[in-house]
Amino acid sequence: MSKPKVGIINVTGYAGVELARLLSQHPEVALVSVTGRSMAGKKLGEVFPHLADVKLTIEAGIGEVDLACSAMPHKESAREVVPLINQGIKVVDISADFRLRDTSEYPSWYGFDHPAPQLLEKAVYGLPELYRQEVATAQLVANPGCYPTGAILALAPAVKSGIIEPEIVIDSKSGLSGAGRTLNLHTHYTEANEDASAYALDGHRHLPEIIQELGLLRPELPPSITFAPHLVPMTRGILTTAYAPLASGKIAADKKGRQELLHLYREFYQDEPFVRVVEHPPHTKHTWGNNTCFVHPTIDLRTGRLIAISAIDNLVKGAAGQAIQNMNLMLGLPEATGLGALAIYP
Amino acid sequence: MSKPKVGIINVTGYAGVELARLLSQHPEVALVSVTGRSMAGKKLGEVFPHLADVKLTIEAGIGEVDLACSAMPHKESAREVVPLINQGIKVVDISADFRLRDTSEYPSWYGFDHPAPQLLEKAVYGLPELYRQEVATAQLVANPGCYPTGAILALAPAVKSGIIEPEIVIDSKSGLSGAGRTLNLHTHYTEANEDASAYALDGHRHLPEIIQELGLLRPELPPSITFAPHLVPMTRGILTTAYAPLASGKIAADKKGRQELLHLYREFYQDEPFVRVVEHPPHTKHTWGNNTCFVHPTIDLRTGRLIAISAIDNLVKGAAGQAIQNMNLMLGLPEATGLGALAIYP
Amino acid sequence: MSKPKVGIINVTGYAGVELARLLSQHPEVALVSVTGRSMAGKKLGEVFPHLADVKLTIEAGIGEVDLACSAMPHKESAREVVPLINQGIKVVDISADFRLRDTSEYPSWYGFDHPAPQLLEKAVYGLPELYRQEVATAQLVANPGCYPTGAILALAPAVKSGIIEPEIVIDSKSGLSGAGRTLNLHTHYTEANEDASAYALDGHRHLPEIIQELGLLRPELPPSITFAPHLVPMTRGILTTAYAPLASGKIAADKKGRQELLHLYREFYQDEPFVRVVEHPPHTKHTWGNNTCFVHPTIDLRTGRLIAISAIDNLVKGAAGQAIQNMNLMLGLPEATGLGALAIYP
Amino acid sequence: MSKPKVGIINVTGYAGVELARLLSQHPEVALVSVTGRSMAGKKLGEVFPHLADVKLTIEAGIGEVDLACSAMPHKESAREVVPLINQGIKVVDISADFRLRDTSEYPSWYGFDHPAPQLLEKAVYGLPELYRQEVATAQLVANPGCYPTGAILALAPAVKSGIIEPEIVIDSKSGLSGAGRTLNLHTHYTEANEDASAYALDGHRHLPEIIQELGLLRPELPPSITFAPHLVPMTRGILTTAYAPLASGKIAADKKGRQELLHLYREFYQDEPFVRVVEHPPHTKHTWGNNTCFVHPTIDLRTGRLIAISAIDNLVKGAAGQAIQNMNLMLGLPEATGLGALAIYP
Repeated sequence: MSKPKVGIINVTGYAGVELARLLSQHPEVALVSVTGRSMAGKKLGEVFPHLADVKLTIEAGIGEVDLACSAMPHKESAREVVPLINQGIKVVDISADFRLRDTSEYPSWYGFDHPAPQLLEKAVYGLPELYRQEVATAQLVANPGCYPTGAILALAPAVKSGIIEPEIVIDSKSGLSGAGRTLNLHTHYTEANEDASAYALDGHRHLPEIIQELGLLRPELPPSITFAPHLVPMTRGILTTAYAPLASGKIAADKKGRQELLHLYREFYQDEPFVRVVEHPPHTKHTWGNNTCFVHPTIDLRTGRLIAISAIDNLVKGAAGQAIQNMNLMLGLPEATGLGALAIYP
Repeated sequence: MSKPKVGIINVTGYAGVELARLLSQHPEVALVSVTGRSMAGKKLGEVFPHLADVKLTIEAGIGEVDLACSAMPHKESAREVVPLINQGIKVVDISADFRLRDTSEYPSWYGFDHPAPQLLEKAVYGLPELYRQEVATAQLVANPGCYPTGAILALAPAVKSGIIEPEIVIDSKSGLSGAGRTLNLHTHYTEANEDASAYALDGHRHLPEIIQELGLLRPELPPSITFAPHLVPMTRGILTTAYAPLASGKIAADKKGRQELLHLYREFYQDEPFVRVVEHPPHTKHTWGNNTCFVHPTIDLRTGRLIAISAIDNLVKGAAGQAIQNMNLMLGLPEATGLGALAIYP
Repeated sequence: MSKPKVGIINVTGYAGVELARLLSQHPEVALVSVTGRSMAGKKLGEVFPHLADVKLTIEAGIGEVDLACSAMPHKESAREVVPLINQGIKVVDISADFRLRDTSEYPSWYGFDHPAPQLLEKAVYGLPELYRQEVATAQLVANPGCYPTGAILALAPAVKSGIIEPEIVIDSKSGLSGAGRTLNLHTHYTEANEDASAYALDGHRHLPEIIQELGLLRPELPPSITFAPHLVPMTRGILTTAYAPLASGKIAADKKGRQELLHLYREFYQDEPFVRVVEHPPHTKHTWGNNTCFVHPTIDLRTGRLIAISAIDNLVKGAAGQAIQNMNLMLGLPEATGLGALAIYP
Repeated sequence: MSKPKVGIINVTGYAGVELARLLSQHPEVALVSVTGRSMAGKKLGEVFPHLADVKLTIEAGIGEVDLACSAMPHKESAREVVPLINQGIKVVDISADFRLRDTSEYPSWYGFDHPAPQLLEKAVYGLPELYRQEVATAQLVANPGCYPTGAILALAPAVKSGIIEPEIVIDSKSGLSGAGRTLNLHTHYTEANEDASAYALDGHRHLPEIIQELGLLRPELPPSITFAPHLVPMTRGILTTAYAPLASGKIAADKKGRQELLHLYREFYQDEPFVRVVEHPPHTKHTWGNNTCFVHPTIDLRTGRLIAISAIDNLVKGAAGQAIQNMNLMLGLPEATGLGALAIYP
């Protein structure tokens, strides 16, 4: 039986090109079509020399595929995705266009009216650690944002189990590739190098996603979440440090409590191929090019607060790798297929 | 009248060498003596080519000075400082040896019994924004740690005015020079580059300082502080993001409240030569080589939390520059003397 | 007597903003006017937070000044400079518009016909180490390019003295600020970080300058120069490594020859305030923010080749600092005025 | 039939740990033993979190293997390798201990008398592009140094074909991982970041290797080679730019000559799986984690010089990847087995 055919819409951004790297090496699917607006007609290897062995030409429109991954920017992605869905093609959408369940969020956070509210209802939020079954039977999967992936995985066991008060602070440090390939003074080397700064304190677009998903984990007690993203001078990686007071009477703020916490996290993620609960603060460096999310939960014994830290490669578990994890589930393949390459260190 | 003579104890670490840069260019003092253990006998410019114009030889012991800045490591610094104090010499100690008012903190945080508790009482915590008068008449000033400088300046107006609940989370991102010049796998280029990580979550040594000073600003309501330091791949700079719930009934969580908050911070720091309250999240890049602390206070309108951010150069306002600010006050010089050089950008 | 009034044309690029930093702190001139096209009307400190203390508003056109520094791009600079020269105002032009003595070079290297060939004849190439007297009496000084500054200073003593054959290879490694503030995929952080590459191997625009000036040092034996510029992931700094065979019978390829070479370089630069001949390979790090050029000449004893290395801060000695050095000479001020600040290390 | 068993001697340096990454994912060999002095007894994943899935414990001595890769430092490697060879085990030695054919080079370049001159004669220099057949039948392969790999591959076609004069200048720019994991002030983050410098101008230890191998390509005209290594602030990658005058009468210094040159290089490397001859200057970024060597030959038309540039990942093609390429040949496996992973970009 021939392998399923897959395609990438907008291969020329960082999520798209990372999809191309991973899909072209995937043993159980055939990457047959990649699109890109300004680069249509060029060979993939001309635009991206590291992909010279991938013999594909960038096209203006997607070819015949069984499943497409869209790496288009938000708003534009929905336009590409809707016709494919109508044709019965499976889609993993890396943009935000199908992540938020409440259509009214789109005008306020993204500045447009959602063009296909009926699809929004069918779309599944593609964090396999929470929605594995739903993803497996979905036609349309909304791949989570990079920050939400790290934040939700750091906090899910604590929120779900009710061991914390819902007063949550999330402080994330991202490398520059998260800001995309589009030119911008903030991502100009000379401006971004040797600099650290916070941004989007009025509300980053990934915040409603985080609120939605952590809220669903414990509907009876909606969380109050402050999310502060930061840029730090590195190419890949998101380190997320989350803080919340322990709920009284659940886990003690002592060394034994810390062990219980670790145990709780390990149980929560016990069968997860891509979440590794660790006993020391993780380094983003150990995720370079790899789909693993390291999670380190601990308790600040002096104050009785949970500190939960996650480290991911924003372009892999935070984008292309997670898309492939979803794709594998949707195609009935073992979830980790094509995602086994170890991180590159140092 | 001749200029006061000053010396640097342990010029060979990063705080020491930065002191040498700033003091050798200071118009109102004469840098006459610098010490260094392993490098004694060498010319300063041999060890540090950028200081080739500073015609000093590294000595084993400090020469005759009116004021000494000690950049020795903790525990060793007290040993050098005590005899100088007994001789009537003024001292700015950059180490932690005279920062904590409670001697019992030294065994638990620093692993030694304090050798001169009587001096601890006389020492002044050298954050001029809080203790300008005391510094001016002190013989011994304990220069604040780099993290405490950023954290206290970010939070002091909010704590002092009582507009926040004392439930404080402080998340700091530091460049590698803060970890010193001593060799260490964590600061090896290949390990630290392209990496972000948290450390010392069990309690960084700068935490008791932060607790002490924020506590003194509002003794009636001792703060509960979680402090998480992080290393990010840059040479200089500390960005500190602090979070706390607004106290009810003080400042509203709306746009007007934000303006009031800004006003409150601006009033608090209105005459400060080295604190600049700004309306946008600051960049560490804008402090490179300079003694300014940028502070940006804002309110997360969705949750009613204060977010207060500070940016400093850890080796200047976080160490050598602040030491000179203290020295100026102790010598009766205008506080900003020798500290006027603009930051180097980009 | 009042201080000379100076202005900056196009303050918004990296050379311009570095000029603003240095001129605003210069003790003997008054920076009274700065221009910038898209930013006209804004306060300088709004656009560049590190300059908040410089109380100037960016203007559309230059005000009344005694001397102007132009940091406009080539071709556009001449348009601004010509009218100023006609009004009798002194000008240091940081662009390439008056560097090449042969007008026919402009169409081929820069793609335009020179608009003012008569001024080209009057202009002085502003490398004070070679043209100090001419600069002092010039009305129009062409500030050298960043690469030529490093390359010429590395090679001038060897070329002038005839100790090398004129078969010269120049390999330069530049930080990204040399590529300017204009957005470009090559200077996007994510592309430039963790990358090294050569470019412009067909002939960088700085090559004719290098050929012209090294040629003038020894007109009887025109050099054959290969120049290969490279980008390496840092913000500031140019390291230039130049290679040429020793001429036979001049300096021996042995340890004694190395000492003679060092002596020859030290004599050549003996009174230079901004060239430091050193016995070890220099580091660009030691020039950060400073006007010094470190030069290290040595002999490859196995092959009898000269290796001459220079290190500069491309924005200081390679642009704004050198412009001020020229300005000082043109205004009759001591050459090093306002350029004494030590480099920032680490 | 069971897979060949392989081991790594000294897994704790950067070449060793990169071998572990690549060998543990290799489909046709079984990585069964890894050694490390100070870390013996620890699990590999404890020391290197990215290898947590590799279930091996670091041992004091190598276990039973068919082939061992030694990543010991020079001098110490020979001591480990000799007994293995005597036992009939195949060895790829990543150290320099068997690279130089002339035993008298060891005292002068490496400071020790070679302990096994008889093995030196049997050892094959493991650059498969030059010695594929010999490697395939060798028991002991000396894996080339990182700089020689880039330099020889850049120059081999030109030297072999006689199109250049043997007056060669090689200027290499290396990332810091090439300097190893041992602590050292030069590789301390704060010293190495934002810095470029040359080193070892008196003769880097990789120079005799380069001389030996380029000399063997054209024994009738021994080359005169200047080699200047540089450190630039990145983790991985070596960019080598080599220069030599074209020999007269071979290839013209015009655009047609450039095409001939390209053709000559393409023919030379036509069947090579890991050398890619490209028409534009290559970027080290495109080799991250991958075994490819990009080579770009061109002619400086003004001066008639060859400029040949290569880009490699110093830990892959410059160390561990090339060792595996050699191992594959020695074990009769297809040469590219286990080396197919695409580079990670950006």
